[in-house]
Amino acid sequence: MKAAIYHGPGDVRVEEIDEPKIQDPDDVIMRVTHTAICGSDLWFYRGYEEHEEGSRVGHEPMGIVEEVGKNVRNVKPGDRVLAPFAISCGECEFCRKGLYTSCIKGGFWGPHGKEGAQAEKIRVPNANGTLVRIPERYANDEDVLKSILPLTDVMATGHHAAVCADVKAGDTAVVVGDGAVGLCAVLASQRLGAERIIAMGHHEDRLEIAKQFGATETISARGDEAVEQARELTYGGANHVLECVGSASSLEMSANIVRPGGNIGYVGVPHVESAGFLRPLFYKNAIFRGGPAPVRKYVEELMADVLQGTLDPVPVLDKTVDLDGVPEGYKAMDEREAIKVMVKI
Amino acid sequence: MKAAIYHGPGDVRVEEIDEPKIQDPDDVIMRVTHTAICGSDLWFYRGYEEHEEGSRVGHEPMGIVEEVGKNVRNVKPGDRVLAPFAISCGECEFCRKGLYTSCIKGGFWGPHGKEGAQAEKIRVPNANGTLVRIPERYANDEDVLKSILPLTDVMATGHHAAVCADVKAGDTAVVVGDGAVGLCAVLASQRLGAERIIAMGHHEDRLEIAKQFGATETISARGDEAVEQARELTYGGANHVLECVGSASSLEMSANIVRPGGNIGYVGVPHVESAGFLRPLFYKNAIFRGGPAPVRKYVEELMADVLQGTLDPVPVLDKTVDLDGVPEGYKAMDEREAIKVMVKI
Repeated sequence: MKAAIYHGPGDVRVEEIDEPKIQDPDDVIMRVTHTAICGSDLWFYRGYEEHEEGSRVGHEPMGIVEEVGKNVRNVKPGDRVLAPFAISCGECEFCRKGLYTSCIKGGFWGPHGKEGAQAEKIRVPNANGTLVRIPERYANDEDVLKSILPLTDVMATGHHAAVCADVKAGDTAVVVGDGAVGLCAVLASQRLGAERIIAMGHHEDRLEIAKQFGATETISARGDEAVEQARELTYGGANHVLECVGSASSLEMSANIVRPGGNIGYVGVPHVESAGFLRPLFYKNAIFRGGPAPVRKYVEELMADVLQGTLDPVPVLDKTVDLDGVPEGYKAMDEREAIKVMVKI
Repeated sequence: MKAAIYHGPGDVRVEEIDEPKIQDPDDVIMRVTHTAICGSDLWFYRGYEEHEEGSRVGHEPMGIVEEVGKNVRNVKPGDRVLAPFAISCGECEFCRKGLYTSCIKGGFWGPHGKEGAQAEKIRVPNANGTLVRIPERYANDEDVLKSILPLTDVMATGHHAAVCADVKAGDTAVVVGDGAVGLCAVLASQRLGAERIIAMGHHEDRLEIAKQFGATETISARGDEAVEQARELTYGGANHVLECVGSASSLEMSANIVRPGGNIGYVGVPHVESAGFLRPLFYKNAIFRGGPAPVRKYVEELMADVLQGTLDPVPVLDKTVDLDGVPEGYKAMDEREAIKVMVKI
């Protein structure tokens, strides 16, 4: 079968590899029908993060159950399913607490000899806990499937930013970052009832999507000027800041924008050496909370909204490629020609 | 009058300066009777932090009201009072929220031409909001006054660490740091009903005080070994970690000890360049909350407990000097011969 393989910065290739096999009674073999390329994949693609050469890539699988191990009871062959970007058993202390990304049997897709979602097939460990069924009546509706695909990661991650920043009805939220996660964080804030949503980014086309998603104001300035504008619009600082990048500058910006006693929800995987954000955070007694989104906790409530037509993150998927087009998809995202690429297999 | 003046790293001198005068109708002139030297003063004393040469030092004043400005209504001449390490108006948005250290009219004692508490007298701005009266029946009880003195900073700061780490009855708390704040954090955790308190530090005599203050276990190892021990004692990580130092290593240690989804309360002024603590914090979805303690919010409830005899932080004050002895007091703390020095004037 074909799968995307990482060979070094800027070098992802689609190659022929062996098909996965059931290895454990809790495994499922999924035929991947839809997946995506993630902004977080750009960290290794750009050489900012170690990624084992020769390892598989992709962590947003949706597809059809092909084969199940003998302990699998929650899905059956033929079911349309998705898996979050993290594997989880559903039964340990942390899964019970809704903290699926800390599952003691869990882990992430991709590096270190593991399965990757940008492939024809993928072996899903702990399938009872990890996989989520898509209701049968929507299982072949391509429009619905495309709207659901972002729930595997970016939509749930944007929602996590809003939850961690304690966004509630009537609040004013500032979203730092106009990538797919930032845009989904705007959408999530709107869904949670935020009254004002200020979206910050550098791409006019993306800020237009932010407006579609509910942003009441946008800021396209950079650095201190951007901080100044955000503080002015919030009369001295925002009680709810959603940091959706993970860079040193976006963390510092968030710490400078947050109001004393306010909340920063941060969901961009931190690629930060300097602790420059820490002093402003400290002196303001701001609450700093975030991490990898426990998608498995959120996916059912988000899917319910997608299915009833009140939530649609699909505008973030602005380019589609097939499996052979994955290298081109990485390139398009690296060059910011696409916000997020869907891979339709 | 005499006051302690900073002249550069390792060089604090007691000098003759002009007496303070009422400058604003909200001012009080306080005759300082008791104050202290703080672990946080060691940052500038050791040259790790900028501090204006020629500026006054000390931020834990207790004394007698000598003169009041014409707007002062909450205290009168002759009252025994204390002031927290931060000035606050008591009326702005942040004071109303209990976030007195973010008062819009507030600020800290000490540098930049401001008043310092290690002096015979001090001008207290925003006295209606800043000063706290000590009930008259205790106003001349030296033992009680000594027990109350730590409420100006370290006892309230230890309490803030416990509050930020969400310590509640029945919890297991890990306290990182055995300075005065760490010891007070142990005492605060006990007061809040923690069932197990694990105190971490490197000084046997201080860990003995931690035990007096309610620590059920102590860890005196360093680095990875200390982390390992703490994780073992908490079966994989603590839900409540109180970071009471502010160094890069204590923050990293705290991030490595906290349980996924747990809470870190951090109250040591951060002196951290590397963001090494951020990744473990992120991957665990731990909540990171702290800052300068809003002493003014906590002081009345803590004082009530001191006065009824159920709270006594006095063991952290293990050396007493007079005003002329302030330089010797700094030296004793710098050389770790004293945990915390009381200055009796």
